[in-house]
Amino acid sequence: MHADERPATRSRENTRARLLDAAAEVFAEVGLDAASVEAVCERAGFTRGAFYSNFASKDELFLALVERSSSEKLDRVADRVRSLDRTAAPDPSSLVPEVVGVSLAGMEPRLVSELRAQAIRDERMAAAYLQLQDGIVERVRGIIEDIRGVYELRFRIPTAEVARLMVDLADATCERAAIERVGEPETTRQLHERIELLATALITD
Amino acid sequence: MHADERPATRSRENTRARLLDAAAEVFAEVGLDAASVEAVCERAGFTRGAFYSNFASKDELFLALVERSSSEKLDRVADRVRSLDRTAAPDPSSLVPEVVGVSLAGMEPRLVSELRAQAIRDERMAAAYLQLQDGIVERVRGIIEDIRGVYELRFRIPTAEVARLMVDLADATCERAAIERVGEPETTRQLHERIELLATALITD
Repeated sequence: MHADERPATRSRENTRARLLDAAAEVFAEVGLDAASVEAVCERAGFTRGAFYSNFASKDELFLALVERSSSEKLDRVADRVRSLDRTAAPDPSSLVPEVVGVSLAGMEPRLVSELRAQAIRDERMAAAYLQLQDGIVERVRGIIEDIRGVYELRFRIPTAEVARLMVDLADATCERAAIERVGEPETTRQLHERIELLATALITD
Repeated sequence: MHADERPATRSRENTRARLLDAAAEVFAEVGLDAASVEAVCERAGFTRGAFYSNFASKDELFLALVERSSSEKLDRVADRVRSLDRTAAPDPSSLVPEVVGVSLAGMEPRLVSELRAQAIRDERMAAAYLQLQDGIVERVRGIIEDIRGVYELRFRIPTAEVARLMVDLADATCERAAIERVGEPETTRQLHERIELLATALITD
């Protein structure tokens, strides 16, 4: 424990993390519809009271799970971009997939797919989903801008649209792989191949 | 009735079409989960016997609905491509969205989204979904090849991947518009804009 962390805060974060871990397990076993707040609480070893002091609803819990997972992956990508060697001269078209593509693989496509279908049905869920999706696109845009700066790349279309295309392509590829029952590392390989092809077309010579 | 149509065949097609029309209405009202075979039969004025002599299950019915809708739209696009003026010199980058983009707008994103989530859960549904999706990509590829031939366009990446990108982009854009509660003609406008931007980048000068 760091000196500036109060035990109460640490315990609250711990509870939240354990509920998210339990949610991931329960979801993997029974899917979103059948994954009840009770089952998640039981798995995590908490009361419903502890649950509702952390999350307003089951939907909010699962959205937070997707958010944590994508945020962790994008953090790792941002770290890698910061460590890119400005003096090296790599193949630019392989760079974008390298840092963006791989990071987006395995973003719980089953869960994202369920949440998206639910966002179409439910207005409150829609607002939360759009916020999450916009946050991801914005982070990917920032990362692409960083790579662009390091290697002085030029794109044929605005970086914001490059980011949206990459995220849409990653979503579609991972969702398709889940429907085809394709596991890892094959999903990542397919995603990398498609993003590299798109990056090749979008980067000017 | 045409002379070569037997009444039995015509009646069977008519039953099928009425069940699909009823399915579209019931789905729009209550969503996929709550749309029962009973409700669809009642709306169409048929017995369950008539239903099951046309469709093996509710899922098969809704997949057939998506198939009919996308097939009708792609037929109209193919007609337009056949009538393209080879002597005119249009802006090539505006052509692909013109014929592909608009056709994919409004492909019942709510329904497609539900069926996709279900295909991840259910293996039999997955096979049917993949067949539908591959059929759509293949038809779009054929249409893009036709446009390419007429205007001697060149793409930076293989036509098969251009087609997959277009379909993925259309799916993502329509699904997002549905989550944002954006109706027509705004969805078609957004889709057209994004496909035009992508086509600009993918077509070589």
